[in-house]
Amino acid sequence: MRSGLPVVSADADRSASYGGDMAPAHHVPAPEFDVEGWIGTPSPLASLRGKVVLVEAFQMLCAGCVNYGIPQAQRVQRMFPNVAVVGLHTVFEHHEVTGPDALRVFLREFGVRFPVGIDRHDGGSIPVTMRTYGLEGTPSTLLFDRAGSLVFSHLGKVDDLALGVMIGQLIAQPDEPAGNASATTDSLVDQRE
Amino acid sequence: MRSGLPVVSADADRSASYGGDMAPAHHVPAPEFDVEGWIGTPSPLASLRGKVVLVEAFQMLCAGCVNYGIPQAQRVQRMFPNVAVVGLHTVFEHHEVTGPDALRVFLREFGVRFPVGIDRHDGGSIPVTMRTYGLEGTPSTLLFDRAGSLVFSHLGKVDDLALGVMIGQLIAQPDEPAGNASATTDSLVDQRE
Amino acid sequence: MRSGLPVVSADADRSASYGGDMAPAHHVPAPEFDVEGWIGTPSPLASLRGKVVLVEAFQMLCAGCVNYGIPQAQRVQRMFPNVAVVGLHTVFEHHEVTGPDALRVFLREFGVRFPVGIDRHDGGSIPVTMRTYGLEGTPSTLLFDRAGSLVFSHLGKVDDLALGVMIGQLIAQPDEPAGNASATTDSLVDQRE
Amino acid sequence: MRSGLPVVSADADRSASYGGDMAPAHHVPAPEFDVEGWIGTPSPLASLRGKVVLVEAFQMLCAGCVNYGIPQAQRVQRMFPNVAVVGLHTVFEHHEVTGPDALRVFLREFGVRFPVGIDRHDGGSIPVTMRTYGLEGTPSTLLFDRAGSLVFSHLGKVDDLALGVMIGQLIAQPDEPAGNASATTDSLVDQRE
Repeated sequence: MRSGLPVVSADADRSASYGGDMAPAHHVPAPEFDVEGWIGTPSPLASLRGKVVLVEAFQMLCAGCVNYGIPQAQRVQRMFPNVAVVGLHTVFEHHEVTGPDALRVFLREFGVRFPVGIDRHDGGSIPVTMRTYGLEGTPSTLLFDRAGSLVFSHLGKVDDLALGVMIGQLIAQPDEPAGNASATTDSLVDQRE
Repeated sequence: MRSGLPVVSADADRSASYGGDMAPAHHVPAPEFDVEGWIGTPSPLASLRGKVVLVEAFQMLCAGCVNYGIPQAQRVQRMFPNVAVVGLHTVFEHHEVTGPDALRVFLREFGVRFPVGIDRHDGGSIPVTMRTYGLEGTPSTLLFDRAGSLVFSHLGKVDDLALGVMIGQLIAQPDEPAGNASATTDSLVDQRE
Repeated sequence: MRSGLPVVSADADRSASYGGDMAPAHHVPAPEFDVEGWIGTPSPLASLRGKVVLVEAFQMLCAGCVNYGIPQAQRVQRMFPNVAVVGLHTVFEHHEVTGPDALRVFLREFGVRFPVGIDRHDGGSIPVTMRTYGLEGTPSTLLFDRAGSLVFSHLGKVDDLALGVMIGQLIAQPDEPAGNASATTDSLVDQRE
Repeated sequence: MRSGLPVVSADADRSASYGGDMAPAHHVPAPEFDVEGWIGTPSPLASLRGKVVLVEAFQMLCAGCVNYGIPQAQRVQRMFPNVAVVGLHTVFEHHEVTGPDALRVFLREFGVRFPVGIDRHDGGSIPVTMRTYGLEGTPSTLLFDRAGSLVFSHLGKVDDLALGVMIGQLIAQPDEPAGNASATTDSLVDQRE
């Protein structure tokens, strides 16, 4: 998992995780979403560079998605207009009853106002973007920094306070990685040797 | 109110508040707490310089404090060991039944593990520190940045997600204001002109 | 609405509603469900005579149904094995994406273990049973006494405590109206004199 | 414990408990409360005969009491005016800071509007009524039927739905125990002699 931030749970020792430097190991933008289409404004990752991005990977007939993943993403969208919130419909079961028409109804009935990309299927049961990102199920919540790097990926429920702290840290980071890009790369290379 | 961050509520337009620069207008450390004593480790503000600090101002027989203010401060303490959490017992009514002995029992029974300063009374109904900070009631939640400046002060319930974002932004700020102290002062002076 | 119990809401004056006689004015069994089929064990009302029955009328893509109507019916089923819990899929919109195949997936994913009847469509947008019972939307919660009479019908959220009190009163009623029907009528007449 | 209803928890098999006959084995009125005084209208059990009674035994500095026991009793009082709700301050620790003056402030600040009896101390740490009823801690919730018999006594949290069902069953019982009225009166008279 390309995650600079560990999965957060209330009982873990996270003393090392917060308050230190959150920058991911290498400022490589995360892979683009490979989708069949968008409901709402198309929102490829590349178009969101410069913003903190929260991606909610869900299935419309997944209880955990409906009960906490999607409502939390909706709260983030309502409260923090500068954070880009994007849905990703990563269907890996029950494809036959969760197609675009059903999804459109679902999004309207559940008041989802963020754009939703429909993850592309190429024959396997797991769709392409879900596989690329190594997601293990739904709901999965992903956070990307302003530079487009993935810094958090978590399957299951995320505590509001913990999610807020991570978003706040990402908001506080400058658009560009500290120094210029090449300097950053150099120092990273140094660290690996 | 010396607050660099506006009060947060879910329905307000906060687009200007998050994602921009949160630094308070001037890096003046907030006034020290004036307390009669401490339950737990004495924790004057000056001793916490370099840390993000959350102060929960409460009264032990205040329903809102017991129902959401104190539990939220406890969650912050449990989840973010690098954030200093401090209680301030700002009694402005019912002094006769909320003295130190009663407070000590309350803290033990409600599992409060952060240090609590007992705000000093000098004759008026409102205790000294509460007056100094202009607090209008309890529970009041205050946030201080690493430099010791007050950046948030709110009476009533604070949303977990919003509190988390503010804490995350403060954690991400360097210990020292950018540049050295004098440079910062200079640039701030410039901005005022 | 054939309801012997008024709709319950927390702020209404219900002093007349509880603690008095709940028996509906006449022991006329409610109309049978007219369904296209059942998922789970077929459970026509007639087969449940002698039991207290809770019917949850819902649509699988209705947010209120998913958020509180269905979970409450599931709690009743788990906690009170002697109460018969039955679902009724009363689809009045989005029929094209909420057919039996989709419904089956929904029930499995959301852990619904009570039988669900699929309300019959005869051309209009409102299905037959929904029309017969005068239901105004979803979720609607209905309670039937042991004699098969409808005693409560409510659109929207029902408080757990209030629902429990109604169920408890129905449980406490004997299978048969006290004595035989004519005796009951007699005693009621007596009481009025 | 003279309890005709078992302690209720969500995962237990209660098939035998609900829907059957709830009447306690013998209609012996429960022992009277032995209190030092009342805050609010004095409400000895004998004065409530004919009503379903819920008693909340609590301590003002007990977290579980404040978090769920007392709020639930308040909900019952608000929603079911025909159910008598009574508090019992059964202090078994921290007596020195939970006397009548402190209790009065607590009740006002937490919006408690039901009468509260102060359990009498006779030297031991456990007060008299608490001992008489064999209560093992706080919060404890007790239910009495219209005849004044104790039918439920539970330490800890009680589910709203379960509490509602029990109250509903008690409401549905006639004022006089089954059998004829005179026989009941006789046996009660006998017991008093």
